[in-house]
Formats: sequence, C-alpha cells, structure tokens
Amino acid sequence: MMNDKPIHKQKLYRLALTPFRLLVSYYIMAVAVVSILLSLPVARQKGADWSAMDAVFVAASSVSVTGLTTVDLSETFTITGIFILIFALQIGGIGIMTISTFFWLIFGKKIGLKQRQLIKTDQNQLNFSGLVSLLRQIVALILLIEVLGALVLGVYYLNYFPTWQEAFLQGLFAAVSATTNAGFDITGQSLIPFARDYFVQFVTIILIILGAIGFPVWIEVKNFLFNKPLKNRFQFSLFTKITTSTYFLLLGFGTIVIIFLEFNGYFVGKSWHESFFYALFQSTTMRSAGLLTLDINDLHHSTVLFMSALMFIGASPSSVGGGIRTTTFALNILFLYHYARGNRSIKVFKREIHQADVIKSLVVLLLAVLLYGISIIILSYTEDASLLAIIFEVSSAFGTCGASMGITADLTNTGKWLLIILMFIGRVGILSFLFIMSSNEKEPDFHYPKERVIIG
Amino acid sequence: MMNDKPIHKQKLYRLALTPFRLLVSYYIMAVAVVSILLSLPVARQKGADWSAMDAVFVAASSVSVTGLTTVDLSETFTITGIFILIFALQIGGIGIMTISTFFWLIFGKKIGLKQRQLIKTDQNQLNFSGLVSLLRQIVALILLIEVLGALVLGVYYLNYFPTWQEAFLQGLFAAVSATTNAGFDITGQSLIPFARDYFVQFVTIILIILGAIGFPVWIEVKNFLFNKPLKNRFQFSLFTKITTSTYFLLLGFGTIVIIFLEFNGYFVGKSWHESFFYALFQSTTMRSAGLLTLDINDLHHSTVLFMSALMFIGASPSSVGGGIRTTTFALNILFLYHYARGNRSIKVFKREIHQADVIKSLVVLLLAVLLYGISIIILSYTEDASLLAIIFEVSSAFGTCGASMGITADLTNTGKWLLIILMFIGRVGILSFLFIMSSNEKEPDFHYPKERVIIG
Ligand SMILES: [K+]
Ligand SMILES: [K+]
Repeated sequence: MMNDKPIHKQKLYRLALTPFRLLVSYYIMAVAVVSILLSLPVARQKGADWSAMDAVFVAASSVSVTGLTTVDLSETFTITGIFILIFALQIGGIGIMTISTFFWLIFGKKIGLKQRQLIKTDQNQLNFSGLVSLLRQIVALILLIEVLGALVLGVYYLNYFPTWQEAFLQGLFAAVSATTNAGFDITGQSLIPFARDYFVQFVTIILIILGAIGFPVWIEVKNFLFNKPLKNRFQFSLFTKITTSTYFLLLGFGTIVIIFLEFNGYFVGKSWHESFFYALFQSTTMRSAGLLTLDINDLHHSTVLFMSALMFIGASPSSVGGGIRTTTFALNILFLYHYARGNRSIKVFKREIHQADVIKSLVVLLLAVLLYGISIIILSYTEDASLLAIIFEVSSAFGTCGASMGITADLTNTGKWLLIILMFIGRVGILSFLFIMSSNEKEPDFHYPKERVIIG
Repeated sequence: MMNDKPIHKQKLYRLALTPFRLLVSYYIMAVAVVSILLSLPVARQKGADWSAMDAVFVAASSVSVTGLTTVDLSETFTITGIFILIFALQIGGIGIMTISTFFWLIFGKKIGLKQRQLIKTDQNQLNFSGLVSLLRQIVALILLIEVLGALVLGVYYLNYFPTWQEAFLQGLFAAVSATTNAGFDITGQSLIPFARDYFVQFVTIILIILGAIGFPVWIEVKNFLFNKPLKNRFQFSLFTKITTSTYFLLLGFGTIVIIFLEFNGYFVGKSWHESFFYALFQSTTMRSAGLLTLDINDLHHSTVLFMSALMFIGASPSSVGGGIRTTTFALNILFLYHYARGNRSIKVFKREIHQADVIKSLVVLLLAVLLYGISIIILSYTEDASLLAIIFEVSSAFGTCGASMGITADLTNTGKWLLIILMFIGRVGILSFLFIMSSNEKEPDFHYPKERVIIG
C-alpha cells in the first residue's frame, strides 16, 4: 500500500502463500513430537504430577524456547527427560528449518527453491545466495558455543555439585538453556543459587547475548574477522548496526533504570557491585532469556512493569528470541523522531531506511499492542492472579522470555492455551503470524477518489 | 517523510510554528484564571479542605473537561463556585479558541489569518472557508443543547430535590457536565442516585453523544437537514462517515462486551433491562464523558481493563473528548486489515484514505502507547495504589474521561502533575502535542543510499 509495488506482489507477501503455513505445520509437529517424548514413562520421575496439558505446554514452551513451565523440571524429569528437553531446545533455538535443512545437507539431498524459501522465512534472511553455507555456519557456531559453555560451566560447577556427573549435566543444561535463550533450569530455582557468583553470571550473560544478538550479526562478525582479503573494504550491514546498537543500548538503559527503580527497594543494604550485577543480569535476561538471579515477587511493581516492557521489545530478529524485536523498536523510535522534526527521510548510520520497512515496523507494533491488550483482558477474566503477574506473564510469553512471577502452573486451561499461542506468535514473529492468518484473495485493482480525514 | 511534500512544508507542520504554541499559552492561562477564581473565598464552603494543588488540578481538569477531581465538588464549592466551574467547562468544552473568536466577532474585530489558523488548530478543521460562521453555529448549537438539557432535567429533578432552586441547579450542572463531556457531578456520587431512572440516563446519553460525536458532524447534519437547495446533492464527508460509524460501533461493541464480562458478576440478580442500561450507560460514558451509574470498584478486573481500552480510544476529533480519537482507531484497524490482505490502498465508503492520514494515525498510536506505558510505570513507582486503579486513572486522564476508582485525591503531587499533563495532551490531541514539543530546525535536504532492514 505504501510501496511502489502492491504488497501482494512483494517478496514477503508471496512467501506467505505456502512457506509460512508450512512453518506452522513444522512447529506444531515439533510440539507434538516433543510432548509425546516427554510423556514417555522413561522421561519422568516416579510419582511426578503430569497431565496432557503439561505435556503440550512444556513442549510448546521448549520448542519456542520460552521457558515458562507448569511443572518444576528438576522434580519431574529423569536424566533422559532432561536430554529430551535439551533436544527440544535445539530444534526450537536453532530453528526447525535450519535443522531440517542441515539434515538435507548431510544426506546429500538437493535443496529446492521451496525449501530455500522456507528457511529464508524462518531465519528471515534477505540475501538468498549463500543460504546453505550460512545455515552450516549457524549450526556449527551454535553447537560450538554450547559445547564450550558446557565445558566451562561444568568444570566450574565441580565447586557446587557433589558428583562430576551432576556438575556436567547442570553445566550442559545451563549452557544450552542460556545459548538458546530458553531460560529453563534444572536447579529448581533458576540462577538464584548463583546470585553472588559473578563468574557464572558473566558466562551466562555472554552465552545469552550470543544467542539473542541474531545469527546474521554472527556471520558478519565472522566475515569481518576471518575473511582477510575482504577486510579492508568490509562493511557491516545497516541491519547489523541497528540491531546491535539497539540491543546494547537497551541492555545498558535497562540496567540503569532497574538500579534507579530498586535503589530504595531491593538494593537497600546491597553493595554497589551486587546491585549492579543484579540489574545487569536481569536487564540481559529480559531481552528473551528468562533466567533470573532473584525472585520477581521481591521487586517493586514499577520494576516489574518496566521489565515487562523490555520483554515486549524482545531480542534481535533472526535470533533465538521473541517480542516485537529490536529493529522494530528502533525503527518506531527513529520514525517518531524524524516525523516530529518534519524530516522527509529517516537517516541513520549514513543510510536511509526504506519506507516499506518503516511501515512494517508500525504494523508489528500495532498488531502487538492489540494482541497484548486483548490477551491481558482475557487472562484477567479467566485467571485468579494479580494484574501485575498477568501482565508480566503475557509479556514473558510474547517475548519468549520465560520469566514468571510463579502463576504459570495455576493458570486455567484457557490461560495455558492462550500462552501457548502467544509463545508461538512471539517465536515465529508477529508479521509471519499476520501472513499466516490472512487470506490470499486479491482485490480488484481499481481506485476510488481520495478524501482527507481528521486524525487524533 | 511518506508524502510527496516534506512534512515541514505541509500545512499541519507549518501551523505548528506558532498557533500550537499559542494554544498552549491560552490553555495555561485559562487554567490559571480558573484556579484563581476557584480559590476565591466566595467560591468555597466554610471549612472545606483546599490547597493550591487542588486549585490547579480542578482547574486543569475542568478546562480539559476531564472531570477527575481531588475534592468532592458538592462538599467544597458554594453556588458561586459551581457557576465558576460551569464557566470553566464552557471555555474548556466549547474551546477557548472558539470563545475568544466569538468575542472578537461580537466586538466587531476582524479575524486575521493568524487567529484563523489558531482556531483551525484547535478545532482541527480542514476547510478554511466558512470558519467564522462555523464557529457561530457551534457555539449557538452547544448553548441551545445545554439550555434544553437543563430545562428538561431541571423540571424532571423536581421529583428528586426538595426545592426548585436545587432541582434546576442540579439540572443545569448535569446538562453542562454531560454536553461538554466533563463528567463532573455535584450530587457527590455521580449518577449513581439515578441508576434505575432510565429517563435521566437516556437524556444524559443523548447529551453526551451530542458533545462527543464531533462538531463537524453537527454542521453536516444541519446542512443536510436545513439547506433545502443542497439536499439532493448533499454528501456526508468521509470523515463524518468514519467517525460516526466508529463511534456507534464502539458504543454497541462496548455495551455487549460489558454485559458479557459482568454476566456472572455485577449483573447477577439484575433484570435484563437493568443490566442493559448499566452496560449501555457505562459504554457511552467511557467514550469521554466520565459520568457513572455504578461504582467501578464493584466491577471485575477484566471489565475495568476493557473500559480503560475504551477510554484510551476516546471520542471523535473536533469534539469535547480526548484519547487517540475514533478516526485514529478506525484508520489503524483498516490499515491492518488491508495490509494483511496485501491491498495497495485502503478503500472505505467508496473513497480511498490518503496515505499521509494513515501515517498520522500510526504516529498517534505509537506516541500514545509510549506515553501510556511510561505514565503507568512512573505512577506505579510514585503511588501506593493498585495497578488496576493506576491503569484506569491514566486511561481516564488521557481519554479526558474523568471516571476513577477513587484514587485521585490520594495521589502524590508528582502523580497529580502527571495527570494534569495527560489531561492536557488528551484534550489538545497527541499530534498537536508532538508538534508543540518538536523543534523547528530543518535538516539539510540530502540523501544517503537506502538499505533494507529485517523487521519483527
Ligand atoms: K526464553
Ligand atoms: K470527561
């Protein structure tokens, strides 16, 4: 509508016709498989509570790498169950599409155009060429990071856990959970036992950032570092510049605001470095990871609401995170600033933003606000929880963050299904969701006279 | 940015340079005058609590026709004080600009271009010609409606009040409060005493709608009815069609949702017509009037949140109401629908919506969401009230609605000042506010290369 080409002739819209729908089927299939696997008797400890609703919820939460859960993982699953979860986080975090392509590559199958488009949709890449090698690089990198993280944490956890088996299992799970930004824990109380262990927190923060910063950023950094001949004329893309600077600005801003809001609250009597690490860790984790070093219920209402806003914004596109995404937020703010100043174009990093992208970012915001408002009203009708806990829970699901004030297990089935839908939308991205839901009928191409309308 | 002309060369932006700022000065002056008048000893009952903060708050609330108040009007003001309030509602409701133009007209002064622009800004009119006669018609109509309303209610109130003086004072105040959508009351408990009197409610609903439907709609209806020669070829404007249909759709939708949400709550044991009138009246009043026939605290959380959403949307542009306005909401939804279907243009009522208006509606939404989120976080930090009451209060101030869960008087001064700002922004409109705040520096007209970015 706002572009030179009608939207139904634009690339993104054409892609919607089948790949977006195929993507949904794959996600649903993954959720189904994981729920069945988790429901196998071998996956669960004897006597642990377990229902079909739990199975679907935990499966949906792990495939969408959200981390909300209706059961305590450490009290419910056996080691086999935990490895099934790790598997689910991988196919969720790395992306079902990436993995299936990866298998196609391994087994030597040719990747057809349809499959390529499918992958492109999932990882939201703009460059078609080099897609296959990109996927290989992504999978290799993420696995490498996870293994390194597991080793470092496993060795370090020898200080914390009685046996080396337990230390390394905890290390592996923690590394996978952080890198995929899943936010699950098998300690039973997230990272609260390590609230004063800055080393564990530092490693976790690094892993979370590597997962949430977005795959394209990795690839560009790798190209920058290792492609010697290109080095002199190598340029980071506008996308990488915007998403990375927004990511770190939000991280820093979040840290400062949390310190400010809790200065006379949670941080009273705590040293500056303790307060700083609490704020930094929670600011990082609200981007989409969901791990916590404190109990959200101990924080002030205003901090909880601010954190909800951070989760609503979410992580970078083409990352393991959810929410409206950093680029959406950045373009919204840039647009507002330039509109208010009466500027014709949005200039940033010596580039101009394409108008169609600005429109897209506004569509995402509009849809997200509607979704958010309706979800909160529905949950406040069906659930017995406090409004604050509901707002936090909805933000957490949509941002695929997974932090909770502890109401997840007590939700009604309606509430749980709503969260499952929110996690799905948060993970596939709200634009993909819009195109899935919208029909494909074209309207006849004719015009009425234009007429102005008074606005706000 | 999205238009053929750069925004700083567009009409609306040029207007921002002085008239918007002049408008602010006028509003502030009106608030100052009203606070001084209300602070005169003759205006207040002996022994009534009164502070400078109360004076500013009640003055700002009456000039913005919001209706939130930190004191009980019936226990604070004398009859003189009540007439001062009625005066304040007139200059707020009818519009300071309209009144000052009206006085210029009366005293025979010529209206210069600057004054014309100023009026145009306030009433947000697109047609420059016929402005003066438009203003005359508006003022005459609104006064006529108020007088008729006061007569009808005054006579009817003889059943309720011991003396005819009191009946007619109550009738006059109720009529002015409803027509200007101010929502103040001097009964001490809004319209709750008339919760089962459908006649009073019906008259009030009519007066509220006449105030909130927007002045341009009145003028067009009048032209349609009385301009005989034009009748055959008279056409309602696209604006009138959109705003009126949205207004009534929201009113009907609101009634149905309130009935649904309270079916197993507040409406248990009530007859269908009682429930229907409760729902209808509250749905009408949330558009921006703020009068109530029940205590909001008796409603379910979900109903209160839904009502907050209605207040956030607000009334029609160029009316006595606030919020993001009906046209903004309608264009947002139409845009989303057409974008999802891949339509190039937004067609409605056999007209096409101008692209610049769609952009404007998105700017309004974006700004409103930011303002809303930040205000709620700040108030949840400074105030001791429940989150639900805070969300309702912020919506009420921004929507210049005035309904409250009863926390207004207990707010901190920071909270009160924030509400004063929200009432002001709600009343002048968020776009006007944006242009007031934005600087007027033009950026050099050059271009960088465009580059695509991945969104959401
Ligand atoms: K997560
Ligand atoms: K009002």
